[in-house]
Amino acid sequence: MSEKIKIGVIGCGRIAHAAHFPPYSENPNVEIAYCCDIIEEKAKIAAEKYGGKAITDYKIILADPEIKAVSICTPNYCHASISIEALKSGKHVLCEKPAARTLEEAMDMQKAQQETGNILSIGVVNRFNTAVNKIKELVEAGELGNIHHVYMSFRAYRSIPGIGGDFTNKAVSGGGVLIDWGVHYLDLVMYVCGDPNPRTVSSETFSVLGKNIKDYVYTNMWAEDTAKFDGVNDVEESVTGLIRTDGPVITFNGAWAQNIGESDSFIDFMGDKGGIRLQYCGNFVHYSTKNGMLSKTEYSYPERNAYSNEIDAFVDAAMGKECDKRASINVNIHTQKIMEAIYKSAQLHKEVEL
Amino acid sequence: MSEKIKIGVIGCGRIAHAAHFPPYSENPNVEIAYCCDIIEEKAKIAAEKYGGKAITDYKIILADPEIKAVSICTPNYCHASISIEALKSGKHVLCEKPAARTLEEAMDMQKAQQETGNILSIGVVNRFNTAVNKIKELVEAGELGNIHHVYMSFRAYRSIPGIGGDFTNKAVSGGGVLIDWGVHYLDLVMYVCGDPNPRTVSSETFSVLGKNIKDYVYTNMWAEDTAKFDGVNDVEESVTGLIRTDGPVITFNGAWAQNIGESDSFIDFMGDKGGIRLQYCGNFVHYSTKNGMLSKTEYSYPERNAYSNEIDAFVDAAMGKECDKRASINVNIHTQKIMEAIYKSAQLHKEVEL
Amino acid sequence: MSEKIKIGVIGCGRIAHAAHFPPYSENPNVEIAYCCDIIEEKAKIAAEKYGGKAITDYKIILADPEIKAVSICTPNYCHASISIEALKSGKHVLCEKPAARTLEEAMDMQKAQQETGNILSIGVVNRFNTAVNKIKELVEAGELGNIHHVYMSFRAYRSIPGIGGDFTNKAVSGGGVLIDWGVHYLDLVMYVCGDPNPRTVSSETFSVLGKNIKDYVYTNMWAEDTAKFDGVNDVEESVTGLIRTDGPVITFNGAWAQNIGESDSFIDFMGDKGGIRLQYCGNFVHYSTKNGMLSKTEYSYPERNAYSNEIDAFVDAAMGKECDKRASINVNIHTQKIMEAIYKSAQLHKEVEL
Amino acid sequence: MSEKIKIGVIGCGRIAHAAHFPPYSENPNVEIAYCCDIIEEKAKIAAEKYGGKAITDYKIILADPEIKAVSICTPNYCHASISIEALKSGKHVLCEKPAARTLEEAMDMQKAQQETGNILSIGVVNRFNTAVNKIKELVEAGELGNIHHVYMSFRAYRSIPGIGGDFTNKAVSGGGVLIDWGVHYLDLVMYVCGDPNPRTVSSETFSVLGKNIKDYVYTNMWAEDTAKFDGVNDVEESVTGLIRTDGPVITFNGAWAQNIGESDSFIDFMGDKGGIRLQYCGNFVHYSTKNGMLSKTEYSYPERNAYSNEIDAFVDAAMGKECDKRASINVNIHTQKIMEAIYKSAQLHKEVEL
Repeated sequence: MSEKIKIGVIGCGRIAHAAHFPPYSENPNVEIAYCCDIIEEKAKIAAEKYGGKAITDYKIILADPEIKAVSICTPNYCHASISIEALKSGKHVLCEKPAARTLEEAMDMQKAQQETGNILSIGVVNRFNTAVNKIKELVEAGELGNIHHVYMSFRAYRSIPGIGGDFTNKAVSGGGVLIDWGVHYLDLVMYVCGDPNPRTVSSETFSVLGKNIKDYVYTNMWAEDTAKFDGVNDVEESVTGLIRTDGPVITFNGAWAQNIGESDSFIDFMGDKGGIRLQYCGNFVHYSTKNGMLSKTEYSYPERNAYSNEIDAFVDAAMGKECDKRASINVNIHTQKIMEAIYKSAQLHKEVEL
Repeated sequence: MSEKIKIGVIGCGRIAHAAHFPPYSENPNVEIAYCCDIIEEKAKIAAEKYGGKAITDYKIILADPEIKAVSICTPNYCHASISIEALKSGKHVLCEKPAARTLEEAMDMQKAQQETGNILSIGVVNRFNTAVNKIKELVEAGELGNIHHVYMSFRAYRSIPGIGGDFTNKAVSGGGVLIDWGVHYLDLVMYVCGDPNPRTVSSETFSVLGKNIKDYVYTNMWAEDTAKFDGVNDVEESVTGLIRTDGPVITFNGAWAQNIGESDSFIDFMGDKGGIRLQYCGNFVHYSTKNGMLSKTEYSYPERNAYSNEIDAFVDAAMGKECDKRASINVNIHTQKIMEAIYKSAQLHKEVEL
Repeated sequence: MSEKIKIGVIGCGRIAHAAHFPPYSENPNVEIAYCCDIIEEKAKIAAEKYGGKAITDYKIILADPEIKAVSICTPNYCHASISIEALKSGKHVLCEKPAARTLEEAMDMQKAQQETGNILSIGVVNRFNTAVNKIKELVEAGELGNIHHVYMSFRAYRSIPGIGGDFTNKAVSGGGVLIDWGVHYLDLVMYVCGDPNPRTVSSETFSVLGKNIKDYVYTNMWAEDTAKFDGVNDVEESVTGLIRTDGPVITFNGAWAQNIGESDSFIDFMGDKGGIRLQYCGNFVHYSTKNGMLSKTEYSYPERNAYSNEIDAFVDAAMGKECDKRASINVNIHTQKIMEAIYKSAQLHKEVEL
Repeated sequence: MSEKIKIGVIGCGRIAHAAHFPPYSENPNVEIAYCCDIIEEKAKIAAEKYGGKAITDYKIILADPEIKAVSICTPNYCHASISIEALKSGKHVLCEKPAARTLEEAMDMQKAQQETGNILSIGVVNRFNTAVNKIKELVEAGELGNIHHVYMSFRAYRSIPGIGGDFTNKAVSGGGVLIDWGVHYLDLVMYVCGDPNPRTVSSETFSVLGKNIKDYVYTNMWAEDTAKFDGVNDVEESVTGLIRTDGPVITFNGAWAQNIGESDSFIDFMGDKGGIRLQYCGNFVHYSTKNGMLSKTEYSYPERNAYSNEIDAFVDAAMGKECDKRASINVNIHTQKIMEAIYKSAQLHKEVEL
């Protein structure tokens, strides 16, 4: 019988508890050996619940030869540096999304992966979502024909996460709604459409509702309890744009905050033969034609938690079993390139070519 | 008591019956003197219902010195030529939208208007819609603050009008869904936002569902009973793009036909202080904040048929009473410029500057 | 150019106005020459609206050599006798459903058809309904696999048609809800399932709510304004049963009147590969599986009035053009056999074999 | 003060936890002395939660003279044998439904009850449901008049419980949806209608969707996590039929699995004076007439958990207090006879007489 592998989790905040600890603890091949957070209290809470030692310095994990793999759940600004250090210490790495703040950082990560040969997966969890994979199957089976246009809508009313905190501080997060929510939508579209090369990007970003932190009116901060009035908000709260690729044209509207009280979070895949509207993190509807009729189809299917699928695939790969490449750093380079171009186009107020 | 003015209607098809004849016949200052259509039967049906002589040659109207004003309800391809001829014959002109197939034609019309001094109004009927004018009032009162972003969605399932007929023949219509539906949305946004200058346009147009006319599956053709299998379809059935202006950025998605079975027809005006979602041809919702609360407001107001408002304003102007400039050819030049740029960008697959 | 054929309509009541006169008058190849009803007033009303001579004796029509075809829209008791007489007079016949009160009568009609070679179509209008034909196509394409079970529900609250009148008088109508509504459901199922041979029938019929006409409480009589207190009600108001055939097993519940305030009118076709629920006279939903998912599909399709399809097919056949056999008396024999067996089983309180 | 009686629970699976343990533990007169399951782990989990000794051999309970009564919650195949053994050991018995796999087994149980004089109640829990008892009261008060027809619908989409496991193995369970769900519906109808004698049964059973276990597509197995691909499925997944009794005619459709995505679970009681539609395990609506009006009445009433009522009645009887006969083995003989006839008729493809 195979031995358990030991893993360490670096960063014990919201995403670690939502996405990493539960699946690790349910995986029979895993022993959680370290819970690390620079805030000791957070490390202790995690260790009490999921086992392992509570520590505040991640270098202890990297130095421990028994550790095979780490999850990196820190704020975005140290994704690249810790990932690279971990790879070089001989660990396999699952790093939360976005891979990095910038394309340059992401490419450094890719290089470290290539040099070390260790696994570097990114938390592009939608690639492990059942509905998304079913859509990919339908697309690959030709059910949509050629997809010429995709529209991504990730718009919320007034939901800036913890204004004044890490999320709205560009030095920490690398950006706002695009890097926080948009990266998921973009990655999902890239995955379903076969990772087409981007060609042009024209976009604009906005920061108006939360420009003056204390004037921002809200009912919910989700990531934090309240606004941090003395904090920094220098990231975009909404974004819009048009992307041309080798495959479909992608139009998008995204907003952490807008003065429209509707939450639209869906992706429309529009092909010449059929189309699909996916409710993000939900179900999808398939429109097509049959025997001269228009058809509208809803599907049911057994679903499994996407985080469990993601962690299990990472663990299998780390154990040298099946190596599932769908979350590899390589597939993130495209997304990172596009995001970089979106920010650049918004700054120049004109289209950029890739 | 003022005498009635005599008018002639050129083109007795769907739009004449929907938008011109009823308001003229209800206006106490108007006598419908001529109903003209190249199909005699159509002219007769109109004359029987609304009075006047049924004729097939519009030159008879232009030659009649008793006629003060004409409505032009022909297919798009003769908007410019008949309008110019009518202006030069000393008539006031109300020409249906779009003003013309191209910017060049529209500018010729503007020139003829300027040279003759006669009135040239375009059928931009949304400028006479009550809800739209209420929104304009709220915007001008500062209720939305600065509008930084507008999203226009004019998307239908599978509704190409009379595929193979006039609507889908570029030589006749000048274009597809953009020139048919988009022009109304664009003009409405321009009106509400104070006719800002356009700066850049990046867009793509598509013709895939109806590419082979006989493969197009539909339940409704609205403009015609059935497809014309031996006809021409060389116009776009869907369009998407991003427009930068001196005022707001405008993102849009439009489709006569798409494989998504949802009909989205709304405009979102997003300001830093408030926002409005207008259901096209319907009501609107106003989102804002008050005393630290988020607010969502719906309004009721007495409504009057927009076509009646439009015709009455034209008649008043033609009689020398109040001259309402909101439908003047001048305001159409912007829209026409933008549409030209949209088609050009789609052709080049890159952004164009204006 | 082909000459118009002259037709006569015998019986100018509800069904003639709903189903026969409008399509005849819209068919460019038809001239309505006679409107016949034993109530002169009814004949006159029809003739005024649709043309032709108003007469009270149908023998005038049968004697007129210019008449090619007749519609028989009388009460059920004279369907057989008039149809047979008309066929023998050299006319093509479209007789309203049910073909006859009894199997024996229906077989006499079939015999007359075979001897004369003239057309005898029955008003099984569902065979001309678009949704029904689309279902038949899907079934024939194998989308449902083998259909093992069909459930027909034709149940209404308290809707006995004109209690005490023709509908509830067995000598006139031949029966109650089974012969009035059930015949349509049965025929539709036979049509979709390829007219399988019936094997056994077990059933029960009930007459309890309307047993004493003056105790029957209702809100609507539809066929007549009020109850006829001195009339006869000796037919079933509800029915239930189980039919085994060479194809599917058919279970059914039907009620003109029941003490359950729900109107269920649907048919479930249950196959091993897929299933369809058809809302009678409405749309349908298709349940199946795909790529390990359960699927639920709704279709849209252009629809044409089923009565128009039925009349046009009859006219084409009478003119010697395409002869569409789907409403032939032959396909009615099965249904008539089953109905006869249902009444017999209900009387014997045990299953009958066919 | 009365002493507590000691009871033992044989079989610690799903139904024991849902229906037996909680009410026993809430009944002040009961001490749970044994939790028995052939899987030791299951016995332990129950004992930890509800007290008593965890054992794997039920004979220990039967041999313990302090035990007054037992609940039998095993798979169906040992209902009869253990019940008989328990009765003969001097215990009162509450055996889960269905009483047995066959009529013969049920009659052996009845015989053992009669010979020993001990109580033998069956888990026909609907007889303790508040709504059902309220309906029975209304029926007995004559509010529905004579009930001539009952329709039972117990149909689900794709819900075979643990395909390949105990539920679908006839040797273990005795049958499929009829014996699992149908027995409850039949028993409920028998109870409300005064246990009328059955006369004829005509029915068909089907096993098509789950015929090949690995081709069965589903989203939920409820009873088990997944299909057991190497298991047995030799029971019916759907059933339909017509039952004649001394009282009402009963028509029914039942399905664990069907290709219709609707879950219908209701019973219609149709009388000449009124009718009731009961949503199984839910509320009911009463249709009738009053002063020439149609009436539709919904009732509210205090409800008590049916399992608690059932267990308390059994405990009271076992303690020699009130002896409630409504769940006695005697009332199950009818249901068991009918189920036997349903399976026989389905096998012979013709009606059977009783």
